[in-house]
Amino acid sequence: MTNPVAMAEVWRDPFLESVHHGHAVVCDDTGQIVQTWGDPHKMILPRSSAKMIQALPLIESGAADAYGLGTEHLALACASHNGAAIHTDRVTKWLDYLGLNDSDFRCGPQEPDDRDARNALIRAHESPCQMHNNCSGKHSGFLTLNKHLGTGPDYVDPDHAVQRACLEAFERVTGESSPGFGIDGCSAPNFATSLHGMARAMSHFAAAPTGSAEERLRSAMMLHPDLVAGEGRACTNLMRAMGGKVAIKTGAEAFFIAIIPELKMGVALKIDDGGTRAAECAIAAILVKLGVLEPDHPETLKYLNAPIRNRRDLVTGAVRAAPALV
Amino acid sequence: MTNPVAMAEVWRDPFLESVHHGHAVVCDDTGQIVQTWGDPHKMILPRSSAKMIQALPLIESGAADAYGLGTEHLALACASHNGAAIHTDRVTKWLDYLGLNDSDFRCGPQEPDDRDARNALIRAHESPCQMHNNCSGKHSGFLTLNKHLGTGPDYVDPDHAVQRACLEAFERVTGESSPGFGIDGCSAPNFATSLHGMARAMSHFAAAPTGSAEERLRSAMMLHPDLVAGEGRACTNLMRAMGGKVAIKTGAEAFFIAIIPELKMGVALKIDDGGTRAAECAIAAILVKLGVLEPDHPETLKYLNAPIRNRRDLVTGAVRAAPALV
Repeated sequence: MTNPVAMAEVWRDPFLESVHHGHAVVCDDTGQIVQTWGDPHKMILPRSSAKMIQALPLIESGAADAYGLGTEHLALACASHNGAAIHTDRVTKWLDYLGLNDSDFRCGPQEPDDRDARNALIRAHESPCQMHNNCSGKHSGFLTLNKHLGTGPDYVDPDHAVQRACLEAFERVTGESSPGFGIDGCSAPNFATSLHGMARAMSHFAAAPTGSAEERLRSAMMLHPDLVAGEGRACTNLMRAMGGKVAIKTGAEAFFIAIIPELKMGVALKIDDGGTRAAECAIAAILVKLGVLEPDHPETLKYLNAPIRNRRDLVTGAVRAAPALV
Repeated sequence: MTNPVAMAEVWRDPFLESVHHGHAVVCDDTGQIVQTWGDPHKMILPRSSAKMIQALPLIESGAADAYGLGTEHLALACASHNGAAIHTDRVTKWLDYLGLNDSDFRCGPQEPDDRDARNALIRAHESPCQMHNNCSGKHSGFLTLNKHLGTGPDYVDPDHAVQRACLEAFERVTGESSPGFGIDGCSAPNFATSLHGMARAMSHFAAAPTGSAEERLRSAMMLHPDLVAGEGRACTNLMRAMGGKVAIKTGAEAFFIAIIPELKMGVALKIDDGGTRAAECAIAAILVKLGVLEPDHPETLKYLNAPIRNRRDLVTGAVRAAPALV
């Protein structure tokens, strides 16, 4: 076991106030490690960074084509979205088309991160619905697969056919037998693997040929960065900055992945303490190191050297990539 | 320099998903270290954990008595409050009494953490004011001192008489010469010291005799736990659980202090990565270790072994104190 390495420094100038440590792996298309920081064997839960894996059975089963899902649906199936109108409108139509409604979800309600959507609910004295849950696109995918399979309503049960299909896909692309799962924020099982396993899975997505389920999902993510997260979010901003050539995805507790088709490489990283600001900084630094993100792009600088502003909008410091990543 | 020690573990059962490391010092009334974890010499910014020190000049100058401030005002001067009506109503009256208004603040506006207050603003299509800033009580104290001194309006300028008085008090109670300051979220300078210096300052507050400025401030905090933070907050909940016998105070970037009069001891702790959930867990563990917080009190368990609930209110894991603290 290798100790985690410092990945992001939080400066309140002129003092270094906080530091985040973590682990990261870059894999090539043979699944071999190209570069690593910390412990590549660390057992992790990829959380929402696994959504494109959880969407594989949706395509591989034939469900996506049977229900005529397009790239927007596939991007939403891989999304942790803000609950903005662009997300919830599409999810609502998708549910309608399946002949289902909000009560068929098993993800639970969540106050939208999108300010306009949040304020509209508050002004209408309405509670958030399950469609506002950041995972409602993934769950729409689960519901589509479930309808296609004709299986029971509790599709988040680890023994349900939908989740068994997810586990099969997960073990196949990570190349590892999963030692178990935790229950995610949206109530679906989230399968464990090593950090190397997750990077291997992402290199598999990166190298997958045109027309494969993996390619369709990564392409949908790259085509619709606004659907995968939302305005102001790192996934959306950095995918836009890379001109649709790389797919990236955050996960809770400071997980992050990247799928880089032009290099046939995958990246997986985990900040040990779960600090999202550090995961965003570290993934930006690694994408710059790999030559797929411009170091001076204004969006890059929002994460690589992110100014900290106070209540009067004064810059009081910055979150900066640690020396090991620059 | 000693490495930080693991202080809080984040479990997504059955997996250990994240870990927070930090440093802590317990001091007695002579300023000697009683117990330490990690590096007591670590240079830190105490952030809002320094508010009772920043309130010393308010009393020592005679300003608090000249303006007839009571224990509620003193508690608010030490507060990082939720911006609930119980906080903002009192701050508004205080300002009125000084003949000042919201525009005299230099803390900046902040959306209240209190849900009712936040929703009321959104429904009224109103923007948050500076009085909603969690530091508006501290700034009301600054404004009171400023009025008493007859000095200029930019009271957060590090060269202003108000801040020079804060620095003098800070160096006196920490027993150290401060190497500088960062600018805080509320735009006031936040002076640096060692973790030992901060624990020494807190033991000084703990041992201070009845009628001293230090005793008046710690007593005001212990008397009004609801004003120091607010409903649902660790400071409020844990001070209530200790029956008004201990004053505790959080600070940004995972700082926490405790003032324990019955033991004449002070505690200061810093989680290296700035994770507040870990600081709350660690201070609860240390207060239990010192015998001033019941280990089985329902409020204690909210922090020492805090259940993590998902969007459907299922318990998916817990934030638990690490072995070094139990």
